[in-house]
Amino acid sequence: MRWLADVHVRLRPGIADPEGLTIAGGLRALGFSTVDEVRAGKLLRIAFQADDRSAAEAAVDAMCRRLLANPVMETADWELRAEVDQAAGEPVP
Amino acid sequence: MRWLADVHVRLRPGIADPEGLTIAGGLRALGFSTVDEVRAGKLLRIAFQADDRSAAEAAVDAMCRRLLANPVMETADWELRAEVDQAAGEPVP
Repeated sequence: MRWLADVHVRLRPGIADPEGLTIAGGLRALGFSTVDEVRAGKLLRIAFQADDRSAAEAAVDAMCRRLLANPVMETADWELRAEVDQAAGEPVP
Repeated sequence: MRWLADVHVRLRPGIADPEGLTIAGGLRALGFSTVDEVRAGKLLRIAFQADDRSAAEAAVDAMCRRLLANPVMETADWELRAEVDQAAGEPVP
């Protein structure tokens, strides 16, 4: 069964974010003067195979801990859904 | 009124994504052999002031078009919510 995980990796509060500061400065320079703060993070869409939801959740959790997020500086959360198999959903005419 | 927008910037389908390929290779090398594909994007949390929801929506839409996303290669969508003002929500004892 194929799963799609949308993983959101964010910097922890208080960790310096030069990319976010640069984007905020760019927005203000373009006239968006009410921008208070921008924090930049990563968005990763991962497609993978797993037998069931609990196995898929465990896999994404392990991926985040082992590679995707640095727990000292970042937090990770995710949305997980089963990918609908188009071929199986529509009978062959 | 203060608003928080979580902007998701994703590469359009078919656009080469070397960062995603690298992450997918790293996951497979760590033993996550069922990973089919990883697509990398940006996650931006923007805090800004706007009078009401329609003004806030219009502001985020303009920010995406003018700076945050390159429409040739990327798509942007967002979730927008009013930030609860703790000070106003709790009466002074």
